[in-house]
Amino acid sequence: MSNGKQDIFVGAIEAGGTKFVCAVGSGPGEQLIEREQFPTSPDPSIVLEQAAQWLRDKQAQYGPLAAIGIASFGPVDLDKASPTYGYITSTPKAGWANTDIVGPMRAAFPGIPIGFDTDVNGAGLGEKRWGAAQGLDDFIYITVGTGLGGGGMARGELLHGLVHPEMGHMGLPRVGDDTFEGACPFHGRCWEGLCSGPAVEKRAGMPAEELPPDHPAWAITTRYMAHALVNLTCVLSPSRIVIGGSVRKGGQLGEAAFFKEVRRAYREIMADYIVSPALTEDGIADYIVPPLLGDDAGVCGAIALAQAALG
Amino acid sequence: MSNGKQDIFVGAIEAGGTKFVCAVGSGPGEQLIEREQFPTSPDPSIVLEQAAQWLRDKQAQYGPLAAIGIASFGPVDLDKASPTYGYITSTPKAGWANTDIVGPMRAAFPGIPIGFDTDVNGAGLGEKRWGAAQGLDDFIYITVGTGLGGGGMARGELLHGLVHPEMGHMGLPRVGDDTFEGACPFHGRCWEGLCSGPAVEKRAGMPAEELPPDHPAWAITTRYMAHALVNLTCVLSPSRIVIGGSVRKGGQLGEAAFFKEVRRAYREIMADYIVSPALTEDGIADYIVPPLLGDDAGVCGAIALAQAALG
Repeated sequence: MSNGKQDIFVGAIEAGGTKFVCAVGSGPGEQLIEREQFPTSPDPSIVLEQAAQWLRDKQAQYGPLAAIGIASFGPVDLDKASPTYGYITSTPKAGWANTDIVGPMRAAFPGIPIGFDTDVNGAGLGEKRWGAAQGLDDFIYITVGTGLGGGGMARGELLHGLVHPEMGHMGLPRVGDDTFEGACPFHGRCWEGLCSGPAVEKRAGMPAEELPPDHPAWAITTRYMAHALVNLTCVLSPSRIVIGGSVRKGGQLGEAAFFKEVRRAYREIMADYIVSPALTEDGIADYIVPPLLGDDAGVCGAIALAQAALG
Repeated sequence: MSNGKQDIFVGAIEAGGTKFVCAVGSGPGEQLIEREQFPTSPDPSIVLEQAAQWLRDKQAQYGPLAAIGIASFGPVDLDKASPTYGYITSTPKAGWANTDIVGPMRAAFPGIPIGFDTDVNGAGLGEKRWGAAQGLDDFIYITVGTGLGGGGMARGELLHGLVHPEMGHMGLPRVGDDTFEGACPFHGRCWEGLCSGPAVEKRAGMPAEELPPDHPAWAITTRYMAHALVNLTCVLSPSRIVIGGSVRKGGQLGEAAFFKEVRRAYREIMADYIVSPALTEDGIADYIVPPLLGDDAGVCGAIALAQAALG
């Protein structure tokens, strides 16, 4: 991917399970010229046409889009040789299983390169270009919100593989004598089933945003987060782990306290086994971090995917 | 790495925690011209000089080595910009912490390129070139023996990162009401602490090789293995997982039955969440596999590392 394409004006679609965010621009902050969002209703053809129409309007207003980037909820098909490349595949989200999302955009914008990847790989690419993963070839981007997923890079390439990572469905050791049955319909107590927004709400009986700072669900949730991050370090050896999504804001506990507790538990669980300056008491605050692009990580990721599609 | 270097005559060192295996040749089978092994005694300078002397003798006998590859137990420093590149770093193995192993080989063979990586990345590279990972850009190689470690590739590059993967120290969900405290001095019940040879022996009171096929330790060990492999699929999305090492031979249970049980438990735990032909009842036998190079995976990996060092 050429850094020379970095400032080129493109279209971006952050296709989330709750809302679609569309934008035009060339990067974060002032470079993000305009944005719009609408709900991910159960009829994909309507949602995709809404996105295409908005981008068409912006093209009429600002001039041609050099490329379009789509960072999508999943699972998605990323295999360019597959007949279903560019599809959302087996999602449980009503109306969206086996939906071609790249195809309609190609039809709407013939001849314009389209970049396509998972929402978390997109956000990871955005953080690599403009945010908390600059200069790193090996890092992980996690989002912990309605769902829990992870993407990122190994040796400077976005993680793909058999399908693409589904980090949220990793199994974790039990914390203490925790008997919570979890919230994942497939795996119960996987990472997503223990730490996503709906999981925290199911455990505590109230949304994460409303949980008092001293509610015991915070201690247990941050410790499961730490177990998961230790596992990520063991499997992928990332140079940094960036955590986005609403739950990482820690509700009334606050983002700083949430991260502090995750980092403390991480070091306790790792038990100094892997030796690196990044994992010391001093280093850990730069190892487990929030996204620098904040809530714009996703849509900036889609801009980065568009620019990457220019080769 | 150039495939054109594939048949070039090189030296290889598989530096294991129990024994050093040295070889000269250009590949597996008949291409592996000669090999020798000696114990990893607590004085590295003696062991490294033994290896160098053996390679010097073979060079005198067969002609010049174009390169030398070292696939080492770890943790190791793989950062070429680091002052301790080529060192074994924080190993608990007596006598071997903070030991430069590339340096003495450079001194013994001036001007000869030296490839260096972890034992499991080396074995993975060997399986990629000649074995069970041919044609794959994303795969994992696991060894489960005295220790338990993993390496492999993402997008065609060996996994490095902050340090390198230490997959054996991932935490796992508890199987049933298992109360075994584990065997890892750092983490107790991590993957290595549950499934390595010493862990199986501690649990069952006898070595894995002697365990009767119907001993309950097999069912529990294969299920922990399956939990770990599901986690690997979630984090890295490998296109195949290759499992080497002595425990995977399943002792009196046998390798075929060991793999069959791991695959069955894997599918049960994954619960059809990730949809891929590779993860179906038919596909799984080609997804979780033993190394094609068998017990030569390690030393062939060192040959591959040497040839890769030729660029």
